Amino acid sequence: MRGARVVSVGGVGLVAAPDPGLGAVLGALESCGVPLVSHTTVTDDESACEAAMAPGAGVALTIVVTAAGGTGGDIVRRVLSRASGARLVLNDQMLRALEERHRRLDRPVPRSAERQALLPQGAVVWAIAESDPAWMIAGDAGAFVVLPRDGDLRPVLEQHLVPLLQAHPLAAGAVHVRTLRTAGVSLGDVEERLGELRARPGPATDVVLTVIPVEGEVWVRLHSRGGTPEARAEWLALAEGQVAGALGDDCYGRDAESLEAVVGRRLADRGLTLSIAESCTGGLLGHRLTNVSGASAYFERGVIAYSNRAKQELLGVPESILRAHGAVSAPCAEAMAHGIAERAGSSCALAITGIAGPEGGTPTKPVGTVFIGLVVPGEVTSRRFRFAGGRDAVKRQSAVMALDLLRRRLTVGT
Amino acid sequence: MRGARVVSVGGVGLVAAPDPGLGAVLGALESCGVPLVSHTTVTDDESACEAAMAPGAGVALTIVVTAAGGTGGDIVRRVLSRASGARLVLNDQMLRALEERHRRLDRPVPRSAERQALLPQGAVVWAIAESDPAWMIAGDAGAFVVLPRDGDLRPVLEQHLVPLLQAHPLAAGAVHVRTLRTAGVSLGDVEERLGELRARPGPATDVVLTVIPVEGEVWVRLHSRGGTPEARAEWLALAEGQVAGALGDDCYGRDAESLEAVVGRRLADRGLTLSIAESCTGGLLGHRLTNVSGASAYFERGVIAYSNRAKQELLGVPESILRAHGAVSAPCAEAMAHGIAERAGSSCALAITGIAGPEGGTPTKPVGTVFIGLVVPGEVTSRRFRFAGGRDAVKRQSAVMALDLLRRRLTVGT
Repeated sequence: MRGARVVSVGGVGLVAAPDPGLGAVLGALESCGVPLVSHTTVTDDESACEAAMAPGAGVALTIVVTAAGGTGGDIVRRVLSRASGARLVLNDQMLRALEERHRRLDRPVPRSAERQALLPQGAVVWAIAESDPAWMIAGDAGAFVVLPRDGDLRPVLEQHLVPLLQAHPLAAGAVHVRTLRTAGVSLGDVEERLGELRARPGPATDVVLTVIPVEGEVWVRLHSRGGTPEARAEWLALAEGQVAGALGDDCYGRDAESLEAVVGRRLADRGLTLSIAESCTGGLLGHRLTNVSGASAYFERGVIAYSNRAKQELLGVPESILRAHGAVSAPCAEAMAHGIAERAGSSCALAITGIAGPEGGTPTKPVGTVFIGLVVPGEVTSRRFRFAGGRDAVKRQSAVMALDLLRRRLTVGT
Repeated sequence: MRGARVVSVGGVGLVAAPDPGLGAVLGALESCGVPLVSHTTVTDDESACEAAMAPGAGVALTIVVTAAGGTGGDIVRRVLSRASGARLVLNDQMLRALEERHRRLDRPVPRSAERQALLPQGAVVWAIAESDPAWMIAGDAGAFVVLPRDGDLRPVLEQHLVPLLQAHPLAAGAVHVRTLRTAGVSLGDVEERLGELRARPGPATDVVLTVIPVEGEVWVRLHSRGGTPEARAEWLALAEGQVAGALGDDCYGRDAESLEAVVGRRLADRGLTLSIAESCTGGLLGHRLTNVSGASAYFERGVIAYSNRAKQELLGVPESILRAHGAVSAPCAEAMAHGIAERAGSSCALAITGIAGPEGGTPTKPVGTVFIGLVVPGEVTSRRFRFAGGRDAVKRQSAVMALDLLRRRLTVGT
């Protein structure tokens, strides 16, 4: 298999944070059917960069992401000059693009501009309004595209990288990819169910299945490779059917479809509205719901009731419940959900109360104990969970399970 | 420089999501002073894995993370058998550890257990209660540690990997690392200020500076390498002083210190309390504030007032303001902050209202226009921002700037 490789110089892969720019690059590769061979992050170290960009088996295109004005940019320019056998020369087009970019931002041209404009001879510059310029160089060692880390990457991807990929022999459906997303099941459970499929002869044995845990959810990636484009598409469709069958109702969506988008669509389709009351998740559930453009059609308000006083004042949770059962209890979760639904006048409600840790656990309610309350028309219920991991993991799993509870309830027809 | 490399087989690097397990591994390396050479994510593809694990310049240790029971685990076992020149044999210790793990979870032992227990001859198994077993093999090509992707990685890191690293010749402060975190400044601005430092002879020229954009903030990583451990420590301290001086008050903290933790500490130190009102961020600000263990000492409640009705009912925003200025305006941001502070009885408040997009922009208030209202004792103010990027980027930058506004206000003595 031949494909593309992404190398991030001095990127967030070094601190394990999400990298939205990287997501856009991976999305562009996928939309063009170009296989991703690897994604590497290196420090601003010349020999490490050299190793990451060395000719690799099956690598026809390398996409480098780096902050052009810093040491990373200098290293990348030197490494690619050696890799392409072209010496560094002052590139007028790059210099003009940098000047134009700073004029537009109403800022003085930085002294680093002349250094940034030293590119391997033969480099092609991609100037765009929304970020520093990108550039590319093609040679015997394959093609290299260098993207700027700062600013919005999407315009340069849409205007330059995607057209390049579409014209590249790598594209034209060299790989067919699908993501099936599940919530409410463990990675081990999903692996077990796929293991049975893999052991049976059939399309799933011609398609590589990768199971990836993502922020409290589990995704299955299907890669269909080899053969003709028609055969790959056919294998993928067959394998998708088999995998979707094995996952059943645990699979909530595919590709870029998020859990909050699926929940939102089901609410909107049924003309339902949602309000939420959060304690231990502190706003994460609301954040996820409002990641969906157009969420205001069904989501009107939320309350982060961190203290008992807030639970009483904002949600009308009776003091008797707090005294008899505590704030982390099924009756409290149900009272929170009922309270916000009534005050907001919404048809549905979700409430989360629990112990995210690391403090606050007790023998009967250890850290990770979370109650989720759910209101749908004519019904108030709750469920108890015990999540593993640290504070962040407990918050993430709580938000996923709350969304998933509502999703499942809206499947069976409300 | 010699160091460690992390290879994630079939990991979230393929979908650009955050990987908490990876963060724990990187933290373990850093705490032991072991330099990270690179971090690579590959698909479940044997030749791509082989390339990522091939002997590399400066790589003395490779840490592989993979789901042991899936195809990734099979590929890793085969590749490491070849790399270490040791054939695969049934490892009794691994088989017993897997059986014990499933007994503890009260689950049947999966059929994949016998496959998982086929390890290169001479492999050492690390059994722990909290996850699938890890294992390692050392040979001429260097040492390889294989960690399971599912479950909580921290126990295996603490009990096995950290002691191994501490005993390894790589450790003992082979690298000294520091992170200085800034908020409220652009990557370009930070690069520019560091550029001046880099050009001057002095400690900052002996220490590699990397500028990393992380979710709306900009971090500077300082790597001090080469020389004796004492020299490295001294260079790092000198360079840190220079960089901190260049960043001034834009630098809010160092290493693992988060912006929300710094804000929380300043509130707690002054005996102040905080309540929040969010519109376009939808709960993200509350989520960040409650990522801090012990936040309940100063954070009592928040309101996600997505609709105008919620802004009136929950925050008392006058209809006249909404009619005259609209919900995305300085008067509305100030009224929201004032309203939540009064109702919660808190001494401080933050409010965010804006247009996260992609819809809702107008010529005078384009997408990315955000107003942040701030209450500190005796004072109500607001500020207008214009953020770039998509919906997610606007939300993240809004939350960062709100926290940062309060941080700066609490610096000058409230």
